[in-house]
Amino acid sequence: MKRTTLAAAALFLALGSNAQQALMGGASAVSPEINPDGSVTFRLNAPKAITVQLTGDFLPDTLMDTPFGKFEVAGSVDMVQNNEGVWEYTTAPLDGELYSYSFVVNGTRQMDPSNIYQSRDVATWTNTFTLSRQKGDKGFLYSVNKVPHGDVAKVWYNSPTLGLQRRMTVYTPAGYNDPDNKTRYPVMYLLHGAGGDENAWSELGRAAQIMDNLIATGKAVPMIVVMPNGNTNTSAAPGEWSAGEYQPSLMGGGPDFGQAKASMDESFLDIVSYVESHYRTLPGQYSRAMCGLSMGGGHTFATTLRYPKQFGYIGLFSAGLSVPGGDYSTPFAQQAEGNAVFASQMKALFDARPRLYWIGIGKTDFLYQSTADLRAYLDKAGYPYQYMETEGGHIWRNWRIYLTEFAQKIFK
Amino acid sequence: MKRTTLAAAALFLALGSNAQQALMGGASAVSPEINPDGSVTFRLNAPKAITVQLTGDFLPDTLMDTPFGKFEVAGSVDMVQNNEGVWEYTTAPLDGELYSYSFVVNGTRQMDPSNIYQSRDVATWTNTFTLSRQKGDKGFLYSVNKVPHGDVAKVWYNSPTLGLQRRMTVYTPAGYNDPDNKTRYPVMYLLHGAGGDENAWSELGRAAQIMDNLIATGKAVPMIVVMPNGNTNTSAAPGEWSAGEYQPSLMGGGPDFGQAKASMDESFLDIVSYVESHYRTLPGQYSRAMCGLSMGGGHTFATTLRYPKQFGYIGLFSAGLSVPGGDYSTPFAQQAEGNAVFASQMKALFDARPRLYWIGIGKTDFLYQSTADLRAYLDKAGYPYQYMETEGGHIWRNWRIYLTEFAQKIFK
Repeated sequence: MKRTTLAAAALFLALGSNAQQALMGGASAVSPEINPDGSVTFRLNAPKAITVQLTGDFLPDTLMDTPFGKFEVAGSVDMVQNNEGVWEYTTAPLDGELYSYSFVVNGTRQMDPSNIYQSRDVATWTNTFTLSRQKGDKGFLYSVNKVPHGDVAKVWYNSPTLGLQRRMTVYTPAGYNDPDNKTRYPVMYLLHGAGGDENAWSELGRAAQIMDNLIATGKAVPMIVVMPNGNTNTSAAPGEWSAGEYQPSLMGGGPDFGQAKASMDESFLDIVSYVESHYRTLPGQYSRAMCGLSMGGGHTFATTLRYPKQFGYIGLFSAGLSVPGGDYSTPFAQQAEGNAVFASQMKALFDARPRLYWIGIGKTDFLYQSTADLRAYLDKAGYPYQYMETEGGHIWRNWRIYLTEFAQKIFK
Repeated sequence: MKRTTLAAAALFLALGSNAQQALMGGASAVSPEINPDGSVTFRLNAPKAITVQLTGDFLPDTLMDTPFGKFEVAGSVDMVQNNEGVWEYTTAPLDGELYSYSFVVNGTRQMDPSNIYQSRDVATWTNTFTLSRQKGDKGFLYSVNKVPHGDVAKVWYNSPTLGLQRRMTVYTPAGYNDPDNKTRYPVMYLLHGAGGDENAWSELGRAAQIMDNLIATGKAVPMIVVMPNGNTNTSAAPGEWSAGEYQPSLMGGGPDFGQAKASMDESFLDIVSYVESHYRTLPGQYSRAMCGLSMGGGHTFATTLRYPKQFGYIGLFSAGLSVPGGDYSTPFAQQAEGNAVFASQMKALFDARPRLYWIGIGKTDFLYQSTADLRAYLDKAGYPYQYMETEGGHIWRNWRIYLTEFAQKIFK
């Protein structure tokens, strides 16, 4: 291409596909800016604002009272207006991580207009940025690096048990689609929490980036990762099915769609059947792993108890636990105590010799005690498991760590 | 599942996966609300705001002066604060359509915190909503309906010509992945405009919904739709490749990534080769369609001229046109006039008998004249084409119409 053509093309490009909307918006400050020392500067051009705060999960947490107890929420800090009317704040140096933040302008929450990167968590969008300070740190692991990439598909499958066509996210490792590739792969089933959907793990969870990076460095074996939707009275994420554009909520995915025909554990083999008939999978329990966060940890717990011979690797991430027939509002220890049905299910599960029963939880997680109760139960019965305890609570930062740990321990 | 368990589960769900962030955000007004008469009410709870405006593409356009001429931009209107401090505005009844809007609070653009639906156009996010007033209208066509759904994948392919691993979006029609399905399908290559990327057509373009709905009603034949990335000095959309989290711009996709090794037309057969070796495709020019908007229309024009026997159906949507060796800054008629190379390429293209040469443009599009020049050229030479002229300018509303029209005319 000639240079003169390029120059003219650039002029044209400047007026290209989206000129009208783009002329409207636009940012006039660089934000966030990652500084050489790992500190980060945030800027908002709002000359007329009276107060501007920054709220972000890299600031010290504060505790908030809720009807359900005290919860950690992201801290906030006042920004300072400079002579050009731009509000600024620079953090202390931060560790490599994927962070979330937003601005509060005159008391109203607002996105950073200079940063297109954002993620939705239930009904709330926040801006995000990924900071990597050295190769191999968490920010690096959650970034797209110069490694072979797996494909990520939004796939519709039939669930006869639920009477629904349903949507899930499927990661296939790099090379899976090569015409000459006849390799069969093990499968990890990776489940989201309450208020989430089939998009959660591939967005805030960074599952594709984590798997690409672990597989490329030989730390995880190539595998298929299946991320289904755990709300069994819906077909898909909000806006992605025929229920229209509803607002999701923590109460289980949106408006009242009526009672599901079955629970996640009751319907889970529909997903396994679809995957094993549509992908080149390895057979048997030791080629299937199941794990999930929070509600998805509960789904994992219930499904692996229901089908003790199906899954060779089991991961509970900050899991919401109740024994079959039990009740989430009763402490786990009390549900389990003297429950003969549960005891026989646990025996059947461990008789089937899962190669890994992995438990991760944060020290300040509101579900910490039920996980402690489960560990005591396992200890007493002599059932083997691995345990990881991290700082912090019921947050994505922990779930990305747990996925990273779990993925390196399976199918080996 | 027992009702008591469900009730307890609901309590648990309320504290599920994302409690901490979700407690922070949240909306306290219903917005947008689609009223029975097709009018739409917008609300923003901002008691302390001094002025709040609504800007949206359903309001009368205004003209904005730019260095490149006058451009239509979405209109805006003052909202009115009610007694509860909530700002409101209700539109006149609207036609079925996918609309974009945002708020301007005290002069600063802001998203609607009550609406999770939003789309990015280059560097600007806007809220969206889809309004359907009757089955079959545009809003209906752009919605997810109770029809079989195709899968949508983000696929990495190798481009030897560009020396890059690159990402594209691939739609496969419902049933494509059925284990017993041996059917081969035709392929439509669908290209985005300047500032866009491989996500543009599947997001604001609603390509998957349009194809699902057209195929389900028999108006389009089942086909694979390939949506590549047209910025040949990049691998993928911002944040989806190893260049990190840069801000995109209209100047061609972000920071200066250096000069591409080749143009889109020079490298296009890399995409065709990948698709035809990795998917069950039908062979030959009459099983290949190529179309694109703006810059992507220019890519389509150049690629089909370069490879006259490869594509049986060609679609130019508000296309940015220049003849090979020509210059975007020169009027098209002047570039084409007396250009023997271009004339012989056009002859070769039409000698290869494409079954459809389709042109669509808006009456107020800034590229209207170059399309008029091309039509005059085709008329003079006696080359057959179909033409559609719509209201409005260089906007997604038109491109969705053009895709809908074009998709119904191909492979039949």
